[in-house]
Amino acid sequence: MPVDYPFPVKALIQQLKRLPGIGPKSAERIAIWLMQRGCEATAPFAEALNAAGTEVSECDVCGFFATEAEGCAVCDGPGRDHAVLCVVEQPTDILPLERSGAYRGHYHSLRGKISPLENVGPEDLRIAELIGRIRDGHFAEVILAFSADVEGEATANYLVEILSAFDGVRVTRLAHGLPVGGGLENADELTLYRALEGRVGLR
Amino acid sequence: MPVDYPFPVKALIQQLKRLPGIGPKSAERIAIWLMQRGCEATAPFAEALNAAGTEVSECDVCGFFATEAEGCAVCDGPGRDHAVLCVVEQPTDILPLERSGAYRGHYHSLRGKISPLENVGPEDLRIAELIGRIRDGHFAEVILAFSADVEGEATANYLVEILSAFDGVRVTRLAHGLPVGGGLENADELTLYRALEGRVGLR
Repeated sequence: MPVDYPFPVKALIQQLKRLPGIGPKSAERIAIWLMQRGCEATAPFAEALNAAGTEVSECDVCGFFATEAEGCAVCDGPGRDHAVLCVVEQPTDILPLERSGAYRGHYHSLRGKISPLENVGPEDLRIAELIGRIRDGHFAEVILAFSADVEGEATANYLVEILSAFDGVRVTRLAHGLPVGGGLENADELTLYRALEGRVGLR
Repeated sequence: MPVDYPFPVKALIQQLKRLPGIGPKSAERIAIWLMQRGCEATAPFAEALNAAGTEVSECDVCGFFATEAEGCAVCDGPGRDHAVLCVVEQPTDILPLERSGAYRGHYHSLRGKISPLENVGPEDLRIAELIGRIRDGHFAEVILAFSADVEGEATANYLVEILSAFDGVRVTRLAHGLPVGGGLENADELTLYRALEGRVGLR
């Protein structure tokens, strides 16, 4: 039988292979890299994993990551605009929007989008929670910030219908068009179609 | 200040970013993937890291990975040919050679190759250990299995000179040529040059 890695190395490769975007080759390379550094690399990594696994939970309200010590940076954050609610697919969509600096309202992560192909229906998403928040809150506007793909559109259409029950609440979606820095030659037809359709008057 | 991840998530991203081949974006994606699975994903991962970090060490003889429990699969393995020694750059080079099934001798990992650009000289490699093994062992042949690049060639040339002191020991290197399954149209000039130079008589 050919020589193989000792069991602990194989177990580590196994764990690394499960991570998204890490193939068997990368998993092996990373495990070896860690092995060659030994405890000094593995101990703090393991500690960070354990801390993240035990201390971080999902905020019941918005769905972002929260800790006992820090609370939820979105819901408990200072200087938030309580009149606007931005609905996103994933909690990870919150940070890019925050970094844009264009928005300081509240967020609501649905934990996915409607996708019949992947067997995700409205009942699998945090839509009941969303309706509850809109009913009990004082939101003047709900911004739907979904990806510009079929599933994102389907989710937006579904929510527009549901939210039509709330008369005083404006429902908007993100603009579609040319990405900043992108030339016309790199834009696909659908993006150009949307950019033309959504053209903005200059004078 | 815009919302950011809670501290434990940031600490985990920091650890992931250090791994080879993992950029900031991948680190974030992996951390989020782990967070969404929680303890069930992080705990066994942390355990595997700690086990690998504490139980696995480098074999003093060949440089492969060894554990207290399993010993060194190369040096202590059954059915090894004690007359051949294959010298490789890294311990990780041992497994591909084993998997080829063409070799069942002993191995010696140098832990690198001579590379003036990266400030790696002969004194940084496990060459003294190699000489000791050849002096004390009964090796009839030493196979140099280095990468077919400038540093690999330099290391091979250096060792050939050093090993000329051992009269009874044959020193060989791996063949260079067309990779199996590779057509001529995909081979670079130097590979073709080597393939021609090393051509083998058929009759």
